Amino acid sequence: MKIAILGYGIVGSGAYEVLTKHGLDVKRVLDIRPHDELGEVLTSDYNVILNDDEIGVVAEAIGGLEPAHTFVVKALKAKKHVVSSNKHLICEYYEELHALAKENGVTIRFTSSVGGGIPWLYNLKRSIRIDEITKVMGIMNGTTNFILDSMISNGSDFESVLKEAQALGYAEANPSADIDGLDVARKTAISSSIAFNTIIKEENVSVFSMRNVSKADIDYVTKRLGKTVRYMGFGVKNKDSVSVFVEPVLLCMSSLEANVNKNFNLISLFGNSVGRLSYFGQGAGKYPTGNALAQDVCDIVNGDTKLIDDFKAVKIDNGALKRKYYVRTLSCIDSKYVDKKDVIDGVNYVLTKALEVSLMHELAKSIKESDPTSFIAGIEE
Amino acid sequence: MKIAILGYGIVGSGAYEVLTKHGLDVKRVLDIRPHDELGEVLTSDYNVILNDDEIGVVAEAIGGLEPAHTFVVKALKAKKHVVSSNKHLICEYYEELHALAKENGVTIRFTSSVGGGIPWLYNLKRSIRIDEITKVMGIMNGTTNFILDSMISNGSDFESVLKEAQALGYAEANPSADIDGLDVARKTAISSSIAFNTIIKEENVSVFSMRNVSKADIDYVTKRLGKTVRYMGFGVKNKDSVSVFVEPVLLCMSSLEANVNKNFNLISLFGNSVGRLSYFGQGAGKYPTGNALAQDVCDIVNGDTKLIDDFKAVKIDNGALKRKYYVRTLSCIDSKYVDKKDVIDGVNYVLTKALEVSLMHELAKSIKESDPTSFIAGIEE
Repeated sequence: MKIAILGYGIVGSGAYEVLTKHGLDVKRVLDIRPHDELGEVLTSDYNVILNDDEIGVVAEAIGGLEPAHTFVVKALKAKKHVVSSNKHLICEYYEELHALAKENGVTIRFTSSVGGGIPWLYNLKRSIRIDEITKVMGIMNGTTNFILDSMISNGSDFESVLKEAQALGYAEANPSADIDGLDVARKTAISSSIAFNTIIKEENVSVFSMRNVSKADIDYVTKRLGKTVRYMGFGVKNKDSVSVFVEPVLLCMSSLEANVNKNFNLISLFGNSVGRLSYFGQGAGKYPTGNALAQDVCDIVNGDTKLIDDFKAVKIDNGALKRKYYVRTLSCIDSKYVDKKDVIDGVNYVLTKALEVSLMHELAKSIKESDPTSFIAGIEE
Repeated sequence: MKIAILGYGIVGSGAYEVLTKHGLDVKRVLDIRPHDELGEVLTSDYNVILNDDEIGVVAEAIGGLEPAHTFVVKALKAKKHVVSSNKHLICEYYEELHALAKENGVTIRFTSSVGGGIPWLYNLKRSIRIDEITKVMGIMNGTTNFILDSMISNGSDFESVLKEAQALGYAEANPSADIDGLDVARKTAISSSIAFNTIIKEENVSVFSMRNVSKADIDYVTKRLGKTVRYMGFGVKNKDSVSVFVEPVLLCMSSLEANVNKNFNLISLFGNSVGRLSYFGQGAGKYPTGNALAQDVCDIVNGDTKLIDDFKAVKIDNGALKRKYYVRTLSCIDSKYVDKKDVIDGVNYVLTKALEVSLMHELAKSIKESDPTSFIAGIEE
């Protein structure tokens, strides 16, 4: 079975190198830019790929919704298997693409869309065959982890570390998708969809930004509470619903997450029989992510084209899960929510009672209206 | 395809529960003890399984060499796929069993033989399809990790923690296989065999026991060096050889390994394209290990029966890798090996220059002859 790669950017070129080095036959690469090293393999005409019966698997590494979505739909309709590294596409169109794949007797894989080089989704999908997942959670964004790790290690403030991350290429010129949580929300939606065999969309994920984390937070959390801060996504199974959210989190210094340094990722599942399994690795980068894309292709070439069954309807309810929170604000907080409070230089440092995630995220919004600098973090026990 | 499980002990009964709960058809369980709950499924006659053409996969969870070896050989010759959780069997007979599987057009899987519930070997095998592994390493033994973690957390001494581990069922009445390294040596041999696509036997692994670790070591290492101690196996690719060894190791407090608590395991690979990938989970136990055994069965039932290709000859040379060591002893050490030395209450605490692993393990033996209490640990940079 021959392979086509759509897009010869960072991930596409990484996957191309990994696949060809190991004897897999990449017959075509689609890109509109010139790449002399690709010779005859390069095409800018997608029909050349669609009409080529030798090409059985199309690996999409374009990113974004269009033209990726149109190309992937056409590939599935042409009965070609699809592999994608595109979290935006999968988050938006997973249900449609899965149905199309099923209808056409092919499969769709997207391990590299979450966790970069980490075979997280691949293993999560393997786990659910014979286990009930009760929770998924993880550090899924290298940019925000790099920022938090640097702030904690070097005592730097948010703005200067963000600039450093931008200079190193870890953060975009407009860093909002990372630091305001959209990237993690999509990865959490995809992970929770697989874990609970359902469809969870970006808009189902309740998100609190990590943008307001300050040196004062780091000082209070590390020195007074003996904890650390990470930015994480969560999918949690409740009695008859699922909670899905993204927020800054306080963790014990001896937790694995607290020791995930720089831009690495660590993602965990909790299964009824297997217990906790955690996966650690490079969450981005040409060769790691290219490797993960290439592994999905390799599975298909080896004949593993099984598609999961249909999805179950699952109620999403961020009011069904309670946890304790840390809140730093100049504003007042209703004392009925407060478990413990310090006031330092006129700033309130509050540890709350156990509150519903949805309630706390609503409260956080209203607190931010009166004090735009305020910050909250869930407390992971 | 129907399933037979050999042995209804901890792992076998765990796998039975996991498989049957998820609709997989376990037709027979072989055990010589009575188990009323199994009804007609139980048999004490292996020929009932061998002669049953409906049974396509045999899951061996007996442990030890015999009768496990004889049973597995017969299963392969009867063209039944084999899954095993038996590290002793695999370490001793991997080459023979692989050849037999190939000859009979079936496969052999043994994910649960290393790392309990962690899908480590499964993922390692997936990695090598399109990546070059340069190193595997890990905490692969829960007993020794429990002992070291307790000594560090509670300031307890080795003997009292060992007794606690025995009382909790984490350590055997005769703990030698754990604390003297045989268990980790087998797991390291199997992991290195897969990583480097070769056959590495127990006797190829150079092992230093962790039995002599003392409160004095923990104090010196944590307080003076700011590090911690773990017991680990290593397989490292050198220029034209492989080094395979087991020893106590000093690690930074911020390493993942330093934060693997209680009896958990964490095993890592380093790949040329994927970088570092680490896998964390329960290294033992009825449901975790039963789950891993059941996952291998599930792969086969789903049609994934691919066998790896033949093995490459690889030179094993523990003299080709140099690393620095910590040595605590009453004896003298040749000054040409010493980088730094403290003498506290008449005891030498030495940090060595970078020395060949084989040289250091030889030195350690001779030091132990004059001071049977002495202890060494490799320093993981």
